[in-house]
Amino acid sequence: MSGPRRDAAPAPAGDLALGPVCPVPISDYPTVQMAHGGGGRLTQQLIERMFVPSFSNPELERMHDGAVLAGGSERLAFSTDSYVVRPLFFPGGDIGSLAVHGTVNDLAMCGARPLALSVGMILEEGFPLADLERVVGSMRDAAAKVGVSIVTGDTKVVDRGKGDGIYVNTSGIGVVPDGVDIAPTRVRAGDRILLSGSIALHGIAILSVREGLAFTTTIESDSAALDGLVAAVLAAGGAGVHVLRDPTRGGVSSATNELAEAAGVAMVLDERAIPIREEVRGACEILGLDPLYVANEGKALAIVAPEVADAVLAAMRANPLGREAAIVGEVTAGPAGRVTMRSRVGGFRIVDMMSGEQLPRIC
Amino acid sequence: MSGPRRDAAPAPAGDLALGPVCPVPISDYPTVQMAHGGGGRLTQQLIERMFVPSFSNPELERMHDGAVLAGGSERLAFSTDSYVVRPLFFPGGDIGSLAVHGTVNDLAMCGARPLALSVGMILEEGFPLADLERVVGSMRDAAAKVGVSIVTGDTKVVDRGKGDGIYVNTSGIGVVPDGVDIAPTRVRAGDRILLSGSIALHGIAILSVREGLAFTTTIESDSAALDGLVAAVLAAGGAGVHVLRDPTRGGVSSATNELAEAAGVAMVLDERAIPIREEVRGACEILGLDPLYVANEGKALAIVAPEVADAVLAAMRANPLGREAAIVGEVTAGPAGRVTMRSRVGGFRIVDMMSGEQLPRIC
Repeated sequence: MSGPRRDAAPAPAGDLALGPVCPVPISDYPTVQMAHGGGGRLTQQLIERMFVPSFSNPELERMHDGAVLAGGSERLAFSTDSYVVRPLFFPGGDIGSLAVHGTVNDLAMCGARPLALSVGMILEEGFPLADLERVVGSMRDAAAKVGVSIVTGDTKVVDRGKGDGIYVNTSGIGVVPDGVDIAPTRVRAGDRILLSGSIALHGIAILSVREGLAFTTTIESDSAALDGLVAAVLAAGGAGVHVLRDPTRGGVSSATNELAEAAGVAMVLDERAIPIREEVRGACEILGLDPLYVANEGKALAIVAPEVADAVLAAMRANPLGREAAIVGEVTAGPAGRVTMRSRVGGFRIVDMMSGEQLPRIC
Repeated sequence: MSGPRRDAAPAPAGDLALGPVCPVPISDYPTVQMAHGGGGRLTQQLIERMFVPSFSNPELERMHDGAVLAGGSERLAFSTDSYVVRPLFFPGGDIGSLAVHGTVNDLAMCGARPLALSVGMILEEGFPLADLERVVGSMRDAAAKVGVSIVTGDTKVVDRGKGDGIYVNTSGIGVVPDGVDIAPTRVRAGDRILLSGSIALHGIAILSVREGLAFTTTIESDSAALDGLVAAVLAAGGAGVHVLRDPTRGGVSSATNELAEAAGVAMVLDERAIPIREEVRGACEILGLDPLYVANEGKALAIVAPEVADAVLAAMRANPLGREAAIVGEVTAGPAGRVTMRSRVGGFRIVDMMSGEQLPRIC
């Protein structure tokens, strides 16, 4: 298996002369690259070097997928995501269900019970209303299944050739129950790393449609709402659940790298323990992709205290979305941000954050 | 002065065969028209006939620009808006400040004090990072001025030719103070209609840049955050403040039409009382636009009980953003949704909701 592709970006053009907003050069590129949206190194640079310093506040600096706010007597989680996936309809879902699941999952990864969603649509002139209706119906069904209301929305239309049919933003508010404290800073050496199921399904499902690949069985996206699974994890692990993260863009590699960096710890993953289906492994080999870098849309990583690991694992496996859950690694006291993997044949390799753009517009 | 342009949409193509989501035909058009995003009749149809029935819940059915939710001990306001304005930079603002002001204003129109914002960006491959930095800096400055934090965000990149540089979504949460109850259903015959300042500045500012028009003085957008003005209005009018609305896309005409319909009342506006600057009136005449349909981005309509009207007017005028505030009309017991205007020369005309698309991508 090869590493991620690193050929997405043209040659650097030297540092930009930047204004007062950005204390260090944003990047070596004067314009936006596809890789700035890939969920890997360049995305992280854009966030760390431009957005966080500009919008400076403690919540943003936590670099989580959502914010937790004091909202009177309760703590509120708040998250946003825009969806630009292509194609709009794919095996296992579409941009509508993905947009609901994705934001529900970001709230769940804050430990929150979803309270309400907003929907912002950017439609391209000429987009078929029948397709819009299909997307809206899919959002409705996904939200109903979660039991979350879509309470406010906005629609904009852009001229033909200035969009791609439909882009959807969903933002969400959730309530964080008392006693739940999910934060990378709570991660300790010795913690166990759990993964709720088999990896790389979403990315391979999208790619196989896009590239017209036919496998013996259709590979479906794992797009699903993880609020129920997370509630079960929290019920089983209590305060022993230290951090949660859904490994979407950039896959398990980027998620573990980000968490290890934010927590100031190292991590060791065990390749043999990471659940992956045979057909997905085969597809990755044909496509030259490392499944560890491929996006998931219905999986959670949970980093938990060792004493609750078995209980959390059992809770995951009792949930329909967590039947293949496994303990896939351990937190160690090594250099902050270093993630290594014990391979099937016994050696170790560094699991780096994705540098380029593996699969553009995956979500 | 002529009415709004009605030439945006091609001939109807007959009713669509629609699935179970939509109980009535969405519209007479099989594809998205620019006018579906214009803030007028077609936008309203899309919302009323597709989004509201699909996402059915009491908050959405209120058809306000934001939702008010019970969040434990406090009521929360929640709002979202995507910004697709072109050009990105215009006299008086840019897409960044507009995105902050717009969502702060939607929260303010719920009577809420803004608590936190999210930012979702859709960047087009090749967009200059220097421009991105300018937009981000502008968002930072606008948020700092309001005193609201940008606490969470998301960035997506789309391929060249599938966007237009940058689209920004901002969502926001606010807290509705005790005793504040802003809802169209509270509007009564006899209520006074107040407008916080002179109209049509944003639309004319955008259009003059887009069309390369030169006036004696540069007309600047009125883009501004109205949270302070609304706080003053609520302090002065208390429970006598029945509803608030910022007349953005579709202008004062669409805002009053929507409110009159939602409240089940009629309204009479007084043309002579509506503040408008001479150069804006002149520009509208040259361009064949009715200023009542042109977008504002820093104005509020307040519908208040007659006994607090003078106090609210004084509070508006004491605010730097409300110096030109005026009482511009009255709520009457006529047919629900009918808005008429007493013209300068004494006659009455119907003020209809905009039908077509007057100024695409105004916000």
